[in-house]
Amino acid sequence: MVNLTQPPKPKQSQETPLKEKFMKRKSLSRKAAIVGAGISLFGAFPDKSGRDLFVEAFQDMKVDKGFNPKDIEALYLGNFSGDIFEGQAHQAPIMADSIGILPCPATRIEDACASGGVALREGILAIASGMYDMVLVGGVEKMTALPTAQVTDALGIAADALYEVPAGFTFPGLYASMATAYMQRYGLKSEDLMQVAIKNYENGVLNPKAQFQSSVKDIMLAKIKAAQSKGKPVPAWQNEMDFLHDNGANPIIAWPLRLFDCSPISDGAAVVLLVSEEIAQKFTDRPIYISGTGQASGLPLYSRPDLTTLPAAQKAASMAYEMAGVKPQDIHLAEVHDCFTIAELIAIEDLGLCEPGKSFELLKKGNFHRNGTIPVNSSGGLKAKGHPVGASGVAQAYEIFRQLRGEAGQRQIQGTLSLGLTHNVGATGTTCVVHIFERR
Amino acid sequence: MVNLTQPPKPKQSQETPLKEKFMKRKSLSRKAAIVGAGISLFGAFPDKSGRDLFVEAFQDMKVDKGFNPKDIEALYLGNFSGDIFEGQAHQAPIMADSIGILPCPATRIEDACASGGVALREGILAIASGMYDMVLVGGVEKMTALPTAQVTDALGIAADALYEVPAGFTFPGLYASMATAYMQRYGLKSEDLMQVAIKNYENGVLNPKAQFQSSVKDIMLAKIKAAQSKGKPVPAWQNEMDFLHDNGANPIIAWPLRLFDCSPISDGAAVVLLVSEEIAQKFTDRPIYISGTGQASGLPLYSRPDLTTLPAAQKAASMAYEMAGVKPQDIHLAEVHDCFTIAELIAIEDLGLCEPGKSFELLKKGNFHRNGTIPVNSSGGLKAKGHPVGASGVAQAYEIFRQLRGEAGQRQIQGTLSLGLTHNVGATGTTCVVHIFERR
Repeated sequence: MVNLTQPPKPKQSQETPLKEKFMKRKSLSRKAAIVGAGISLFGAFPDKSGRDLFVEAFQDMKVDKGFNPKDIEALYLGNFSGDIFEGQAHQAPIMADSIGILPCPATRIEDACASGGVALREGILAIASGMYDMVLVGGVEKMTALPTAQVTDALGIAADALYEVPAGFTFPGLYASMATAYMQRYGLKSEDLMQVAIKNYENGVLNPKAQFQSSVKDIMLAKIKAAQSKGKPVPAWQNEMDFLHDNGANPIIAWPLRLFDCSPISDGAAVVLLVSEEIAQKFTDRPIYISGTGQASGLPLYSRPDLTTLPAAQKAASMAYEMAGVKPQDIHLAEVHDCFTIAELIAIEDLGLCEPGKSFELLKKGNFHRNGTIPVNSSGGLKAKGHPVGASGVAQAYEIFRQLRGEAGQRQIQGTLSLGLTHNVGATGTTCVVHIFERR
Repeated sequence: MVNLTQPPKPKQSQETPLKEKFMKRKSLSRKAAIVGAGISLFGAFPDKSGRDLFVEAFQDMKVDKGFNPKDIEALYLGNFSGDIFEGQAHQAPIMADSIGILPCPATRIEDACASGGVALREGILAIASGMYDMVLVGGVEKMTALPTAQVTDALGIAADALYEVPAGFTFPGLYASMATAYMQRYGLKSEDLMQVAIKNYENGVLNPKAQFQSSVKDIMLAKIKAAQSKGKPVPAWQNEMDFLHDNGANPIIAWPLRLFDCSPISDGAAVVLLVSEEIAQKFTDRPIYISGTGQASGLPLYSRPDLTTLPAAQKAASMAYEMAGVKPQDIHLAEVHDCFTIAELIAIEDLGLCEPGKSFELLKKGNFHRNGTIPVNSSGGLKAKGHPVGASGVAQAYEIFRQLRGEAGQRQIQGTLSLGLTHNVGATGTTCVVHIFERR
């Protein structure tokens, strides 16, 4: 709240801004809790439309003590570009109709690949506003109906169409720029990036909804076996690193990023059911409370002075930490935006989970593996779980909800888990949104 | 708030929904006020991009006691499909950057042609949440870079791409269906629709930002004069009705809708500056308070039992009236979504400003003209002011702000003006959003 103890001056000038500035701690009128979450299969599904996937995610959501869908008072839907991917804009009311919750307000949120995370934030704010007690937050993207080149072009318009796109940049190129800058400053090598992929593929194997259900090693062995059975020359790969360095098996997309450094093109949807804090126990004995939310915008990559960090992610994180009253070292697990392997390393640093330039060394020590000090992307991440862009931010919240409640099945992280974090990025960090989740 | 005096039952079933249901009156934790508003020229501007228009609107905004743009804490941006119109998605942070307000959170809202109105609602909810004290709400659309047929197709994807678009419907056809249904039920004639256009063009003449700066009569006279000066046969039009019935001058687009029944393709942007109620006087002695907001979703036209009304508009209106504690007859002026002339007539009825089926007769009596009992679309409406779709909902709020403050220049409505209303529609009413504005 603005300090109103001082009388307003008759003429306010640029020199006397409001006392309460952006970044100062704000408090929500009331908090929200997640009482249910659902997710579709992630992958490439020629026979499923976006609305099929959304319905699948909604039907996957179980609420411990039950709920009446008719009690949902609003839908916030993350969707990047149904316009281009499916020839269907204005998806929010269509999705509301598809699950039978008309006439509730339905609003599409678009902040590129952060659309899902920002939709979650809007749901939280809407509950805090006093307007709603129950809000459905969803995310959906149906990307595989178009040829890959068209998908890459469509994703490209999340970057700056005036300065970046005409220069020939697509997203692998933009993130490759970050990777080379990071290499130059901190001594990162391609092998270090590959470790991110290897970890996330391993996690994905344990996630029945993930797009990729094999580890890098399994993929390598399958290719060797296939070569053998076809009587072709058997590749001389001794281990995953040999395989990932093979330009045939793992072609360079935009150096230093190779195929296995890039998240896939995916179809998928996810939902979480938000209610106001005070009624959460009505729906489950184990609600997951959202204790912090932060969102910030940043310069496009072309005008950013430092390519090794996303300033908007740092700001969003500090807002979320401050609101939650916690520090990075308090976090037990995180789902971060690994659209490319380099993005996960930068995310870990931007979130303060380690010092700048140290993430890849700590990764090698196993700190961010499932049994590490801070497991990162236990779901498989965007890399292995899949990246239906508008859904990803919501799918991250789904994973934290499952993990904090001890419902993550084979991939359940052991030990005390009470604080989780999600980190969702739009474009190269022009939008970043961070949430902190709490089991009490 | 949900009634929590009863202990929760151990298992909640579909038969025991929450006591507090959708449509029951909700109260916001705190209200918002508009303290400034700006608008770009509306029209077709080959040399202006969407960001040029947004900057133009922002620079047009003057705040009586001044303000520091750096104090803006969030941007909500209505934009329908920069994706297709400009090859630029993720416009919110780009617009935030273009006016120098990074790193504030910037979120694009898309609900087709209701994007601007829903962005306003999100701004109101965000302030009510306690998260922000100052929010910029903007809307922008740059539509004229594409050929008309492509614009029509792009707009078409706001309808249902599964059931309506493949049937050959574009928006003129969808609204023509409503018009014929309305004609059949209430005896409306083409001439009655023309009266809407004539009124709105007349209003547009008085609006220096409007796309069309001539009345229908002036356009007719200009065409007669042009024919005379070129030595061509002079049309035998005796009055505007002759002119509007001429299939050459006013061709049928989708019967009964003719060219002058359809809003134009437009470029434009608008902004309003929202602050929390308690600090409004810091910025102006004449804030305009938002006393009611309502949003609802409806079935697409193909599955709607009655084509002569938009149920979602009725619901959104009743929510807004209830929140504001006012009745339709209390409203002094309204900006309604006249994307087609028939839409204005239906809007007037859905808002309860008259009985169903009576709007066109009351229009003929002058009730909705500038000097009538409830002036409708004093700005010229979408019809004459222009309809840059993502901006229109915000531009409506701009007009009400100006009128309630007595700053509407030549088009200022005389008499007591303290309550204004905006009505913004997405697609054929799959989204509707209504706001009520109050001068205290």
